[in-house]
Amino acid sequence: MTNISKKAKIGKNVTIANSSRISGNVIIGDNVTIGDFCLIGNTSENKTSKKLIIKNGVKINSHSIIYLDSEIGENSVIGHRVLIREKTKIENNVQIGSYSDIEGYCEILSYVKLHSNVHVGQHSKIMNYAWLFPYVILTNDPIPPSEIREGVIIEPFAIVCTRTTILPGKKIGFGSFVGANSLVNKNLKSEMIGSGNPFKERGSINLIKIPGKNESAYPWHSRFQKDYPKNIKEIYENFRKKFI
Amino acid sequence: MTNISKKAKIGKNVTIANSSRISGNVIIGDNVTIGDFCLIGNTSENKTSKKLIIKNGVKINSHSIIYLDSEIGENSVIGHRVLIREKTKIENNVQIGSYSDIEGYCEILSYVKLHSNVHVGQHSKIMNYAWLFPYVILTNDPIPPSEIREGVIIEPFAIVCTRTTILPGKKIGFGSFVGANSLVNKNLKSEMIGSGNPFKERGSINLIKIPGKNESAYPWHSRFQKDYPKNIKEIYENFRKKFI
Amino acid sequence: MTNISKKAKIGKNVTIANSSRISGNVIIGDNVTIGDFCLIGNTSENKTSKKLIIKNGVKINSHSIIYLDSEIGENSVIGHRVLIREKTKIENNVQIGSYSDIEGYCEILSYVKLHSNVHVGQHSKIMNYAWLFPYVILTNDPIPPSEIREGVIIEPFAIVCTRTTILPGKKIGFGSFVGANSLVNKNLKSEMIGSGNPFKERGSINLIKIPGKNESAYPWHSRFQKDYPKNIKEIYENFRKKFI
Repeated sequence: MTNISKKAKIGKNVTIANSSRISGNVIIGDNVTIGDFCLIGNTSENKTSKKLIIKNGVKINSHSIIYLDSEIGENSVIGHRVLIREKTKIENNVQIGSYSDIEGYCEILSYVKLHSNVHVGQHSKIMNYAWLFPYVILTNDPIPPSEIREGVIIEPFAIVCTRTTILPGKKIGFGSFVGANSLVNKNLKSEMIGSGNPFKERGSINLIKIPGKNESAYPWHSRFQKDYPKNIKEIYENFRKKFI
Repeated sequence: MTNISKKAKIGKNVTIANSSRISGNVIIGDNVTIGDFCLIGNTSENKTSKKLIIKNGVKINSHSIIYLDSEIGENSVIGHRVLIREKTKIENNVQIGSYSDIEGYCEILSYVKLHSNVHVGQHSKIMNYAWLFPYVILTNDPIPPSEIREGVIIEPFAIVCTRTTILPGKKIGFGSFVGANSLVNKNLKSEMIGSGNPFKERGSINLIKIPGKNESAYPWHSRFQKDYPKNIKEIYENFRKKFI
Repeated sequence: MTNISKKAKIGKNVTIANSSRISGNVIIGDNVTIGDFCLIGNTSENKTSKKLIIKNGVKINSHSIIYLDSEIGENSVIGHRVLIREKTKIENNVQIGSYSDIEGYCEILSYVKLHSNVHVGQHSKIMNYAWLFPYVILTNDPIPPSEIREGVIIEPFAIVCTRTTILPGKKIGFGSFVGANSLVNKNLKSEMIGSGNPFKERGSINLIKIPGKNESAYPWHSRFQKDYPKNIKEIYENFRKKFI
């Protein structure tokens, strides 16, 4: 049942599972892999003129759905059963975990990692090298239901632990750490720990130690570099100058 | 691989993706759309004599699964990857968000909206014009595991915000508002705010203001009418007389 | 589009939906059923020499994904849209609910039941007859992101209610009860109740009564035997001797 739209442009060395469907104006770069049972170029009504751009080296795992009018940057990896709606801009080297639900009208900058089952509401902005762990929710509507959309901002190198909910328009500062299960109803400053419900600032990220050692676990780039550029320390310092 | 059961009855102007499967006694009205990779008329063992009724104008998005012995009312929209088990009664103009898990033996009345990833336990009753936001869970078993099923009741026009858990048998009153991340362990009265864990009543819904204005944001129908009948104000007042 | 790998070994009386794909070294026992749109024997790169063993009587529901290098024991039931990654060992008579995400490198022992949308992090060990209810999360990384993996241990007959998060390396004792929505940051002793955030021990499981009666609801095996061996009482007592 290979079904590739005539409008699609496909690069070199691309693998598309026979069971998946590529619809509409989809531009696929070189060395892209698309697993089974995917819908690539899905569309709401009357939007078929829009493009979906999937750049070189992207891997899309099975059962995923990606709408037209979005872009996925080089070497990004999309997990199983991901849903990405229109007007999502994903930069290079991003990882989107399985079951994640990206509602569109949002930006996910380079080297961001979302673990499984992250819900990204419209108008969210997740900046470079941030991590969102399983079941994190970024909301956007301050008086539901309404047409107001106040997106969440996650600044670079921030860590948001499992099952945290971030309320509309709140900002998680550069290099900060949000504990598991928090309900974030105020901004968190850069390089600070925040947690709980009610959400409170708990001091500098230096306070969290590596288990069994007397060394700070954060900032994390000094002890975890897997899949990152070699100059991640320099990158951190450069972002730090901009954000602090 | 179009696979449509011989027992199925299909109306006029129906679109069914080739990759989807229609099994058993499925009755599909006019102007219905069914996306890719769906199982419509799925069945547990020995229940093949049961019917699934999908009424005029229903749209079912890709990767959804709907069991026999259920009913979906006119113009209702089912998102991607929804699971609807047997003995689910969905009325007209309902929206079920992507990844939602409807466990069956439940009722969802007209104009209800469920956002993404809502979990509806058996014996729930969600009444007209209510909204459930992402990752809301309606439970039903007071002493798990057991065979006791005490369903949750959501009365008309109630709002249940993101990631709220409602314990078995609890009732959310007409036009009330439940804040994000609550654990609801008692009933909430009509037109009241409730939130938190421990869950507490926080006063009248009038206390929530539209951001930047000195106007009450609730009841919400006075400022949000998208996709609703024009006489929604009158409908609200009529329900109010019954429930308050 | 039936697609069954030549390397696969298929037992007697096996039903595999045409739309599903069996890849690589998959060994399927007798009386196995595999629903539509499944990927059985999925693989990360360079791991194709590994085996997936699916034993007699297993039922796998639609849209599920199971990686190579895992094992599923006799008569276990896998729900819809389940994801099971490599190095998952599932014993006999286990039930894995729909939307559950089993991250691999973990053990799920006989007669465990996971309800819908349970997230099992790597290195978890869920022991016999335990129950995990919807949206429970077992984490594993004490200083995310890191390469440290401290798995959660759930001892036999424990109950973990809806939406509980268990932090890395914590142990839930034999026959204990964890209330809904808890954030578990310390071990819970055997046959005790724990709940809340902050998480606290709340006394013996005997304190929870059957609604409307003056009888203890726990240990649960005395009032709920569905799908269990007839000698479940004896089994409980034997485990109790080992764990208490």
